[in-house]
Amino acid sequence: MNGQFSLTARDPLSSARTGIIHTQHGPVETPAFAPVGSQGTVKALPHEQVLGLGAQVLLVNSYHLFLRPGLSTIEKMGGIHSFISWPKPIISDSGGFQVYSLTPLAKVREEGVEFMSHLDGTRLFLRPEDAVDTQIRLGTDIMMCLDYFLPFPSPEAGMKEAVRLTSVWARRSKRHSLDHPTRQLLWGISQGGVFWELRKQSIEELAELEFDGHALGGLGLGESKSHLFEILEKADALLPKDKPRYLMGMGYIEDILDAVERGIDFFDCVLPTRNARNGCLFTSAGRVIIKNQKYAQDAKPLDERCSCYTCRNFSRAYLRHLFEREEISSAILNTIHNLHFYLDIFRKIRQSIQSNSYSQFKQSMNRLKDEIT
Amino acid sequence: MNGQFSLTARDPLSSARTGIIHTQHGPVETPAFAPVGSQGTVKALPHEQVLGLGAQVLLVNSYHLFLRPGLSTIEKMGGIHSFISWPKPIISDSGGFQVYSLTPLAKVREEGVEFMSHLDGTRLFLRPEDAVDTQIRLGTDIMMCLDYFLPFPSPEAGMKEAVRLTSVWARRSKRHSLDHPTRQLLWGISQGGVFWELRKQSIEELAELEFDGHALGGLGLGESKSHLFEILEKADALLPKDKPRYLMGMGYIEDILDAVERGIDFFDCVLPTRNARNGCLFTSAGRVIIKNQKYAQDAKPLDERCSCYTCRNFSRAYLRHLFEREEISSAILNTIHNLHFYLDIFRKIRQSIQSNSYSQFKQSMNRLKDEIT
Repeated sequence: MNGQFSLTARDPLSSARTGIIHTQHGPVETPAFAPVGSQGTVKALPHEQVLGLGAQVLLVNSYHLFLRPGLSTIEKMGGIHSFISWPKPIISDSGGFQVYSLTPLAKVREEGVEFMSHLDGTRLFLRPEDAVDTQIRLGTDIMMCLDYFLPFPSPEAGMKEAVRLTSVWARRSKRHSLDHPTRQLLWGISQGGVFWELRKQSIEELAELEFDGHALGGLGLGESKSHLFEILEKADALLPKDKPRYLMGMGYIEDILDAVERGIDFFDCVLPTRNARNGCLFTSAGRVIIKNQKYAQDAKPLDERCSCYTCRNFSRAYLRHLFEREEISSAILNTIHNLHFYLDIFRKIRQSIQSNSYSQFKQSMNRLKDEIT
Repeated sequence: MNGQFSLTARDPLSSARTGIIHTQHGPVETPAFAPVGSQGTVKALPHEQVLGLGAQVLLVNSYHLFLRPGLSTIEKMGGIHSFISWPKPIISDSGGFQVYSLTPLAKVREEGVEFMSHLDGTRLFLRPEDAVDTQIRLGTDIMMCLDYFLPFPSPEAGMKEAVRLTSVWARRSKRHSLDHPTRQLLWGISQGGVFWELRKQSIEELAELEFDGHALGGLGLGESKSHLFEILEKADALLPKDKPRYLMGMGYIEDILDAVERGIDFFDCVLPTRNARNGCLFTSAGRVIIKNQKYAQDAKPLDERCSCYTCRNFSRAYLRHLFEREEISSAILNTIHNLHFYLDIFRKIRQSIQSNSYSQFKQSMNRLKDEIT
């Protein structure tokens, strides 16, 4: 345990653990799931409902907020919490992921990344120091270092360079944060893909820098499950035990359960919210594709074992009708359900670890991949 | 007072009055505003919030629900209340308005209206008896007669025929409802545009049929305010005092206040919800067009005198940001505000009539037309 993270329980049969991340805006119980609110809102759900569902932390995108409404607006409004009126902890990404995935001709140099705004083509330059500055100005609780991120698969030589530069940038990020003291937490991100020697080097170099948390980046991009789990298991042994570990963008519950078992504490993903809007709903009995004709006269709730507002009140037939009519209510009710489903599972993950029954809980969740019959 | 409508107060200075419409699903206090839920949902707002804002009645569209999901689905799901899980009264239109405004080549005959589905061109025929049947099968609390509706302006000769046929159809609708006994209420609709002699004839012929309520149709279509008010004043003297009066589709608060003063009890309109989605917000100090640049760094709530969730929690700057980003949350938060604004004014209308202060209340609302400065 250190000032920012307290471990509260360990699973005797695996590396699963519970803890509390202490931030300026209160605690985040881990294993934690951060709903994605790229533009400062979870899509299709006002904060009141997101909080009511039990979310303890929100993820926002530095890149999007930097471009619009811009940092000076957010600063004038008193920072991100005040601007969006979200009272609990907020984690921001570095902006790197959007730069690499959204912008044309992003060019990585030793100094940083040169890229063009995806909105108007403006030439911009993002150095690791800029990423920290942006997040300091946003005032988020957990800031992420700028990393050098490669797609999967990438050749080992390229990955080697990505790991080298990621460490250089991590060192500069840390130094910059020390030069600009803040109570905001700063987490590092390791790279290396599934090349264990590179991943090991990356984790070790970052661990030296005493970040407040450690993310594993560049995973969940198409590598096999066995490769992923091998990396997670080896990383588990290497990562500082007293810091939270974040597996970025990993969204399927079955993968999350496997990752928790391998010592991961923190997750984020658009999956529950994006799938909700696309009519793909997660239930305790499998997935429901709500547009299917078979639900047209189905009076049952989405999930008979679910206690969310949607399941307590509405039938599959009505939810199908709203989806087919492209009603905004469809996005809202589906998002309530999927987000409740995720946050409820995270509650149960924490409870089962604390009551030494994580493996039983995990086994009970083995039907999630199937479509419901 | 009769079995379905109790008058509870009268304004000493005007024809404004309060009352209660008694329906199978409970009371509706008048003057009442019915939010529009064409497809069985208010756009961008789950029922929980609509009810929380104080809505006592929901309007649904027979035409849309007839086509999709269809009457047999709704019947199998236990009727409209059960299908959409709305516990309070529901009013349905006859489908006529959509037939005249949405479908190509609608052809009015003595027997009914022939038209083609706007979805797939299927030829359909809607008789007044069919409109009643549809609404009986939906199971709505207040059903509307099929009327013959003409655009504004229309020549007197055409309007004369519309009034004649509307009365014929009203008689057939009433007879059909007597042949199929139901506790659902049936309201008639007068036509005649702003030709007072025709409107008078229409109102008188409908009054003989002992409907449970009387709507004024074919108004608010572009005629001058003075013409409209003249019709409302003369109609007020002629309409049965012991039945609720419904001015269809009239949505601006300033017009509603004038209509209440002329004895109108019931309103519906898409205005608060549609405008919300378009970023046009009603406040006690005038209208706010939220996309305007001047709100980009405006930390004030939309309406400092408003107690809705949106105004209690969010700034104009954040609402503008959500609107600009086309976030679904923008539609939700804006709809919460506009609908609260409307339903709150209706609460105040009823309170002021009951406390003999309607004219003062109406005067206090004289800034609504302006855009906020």
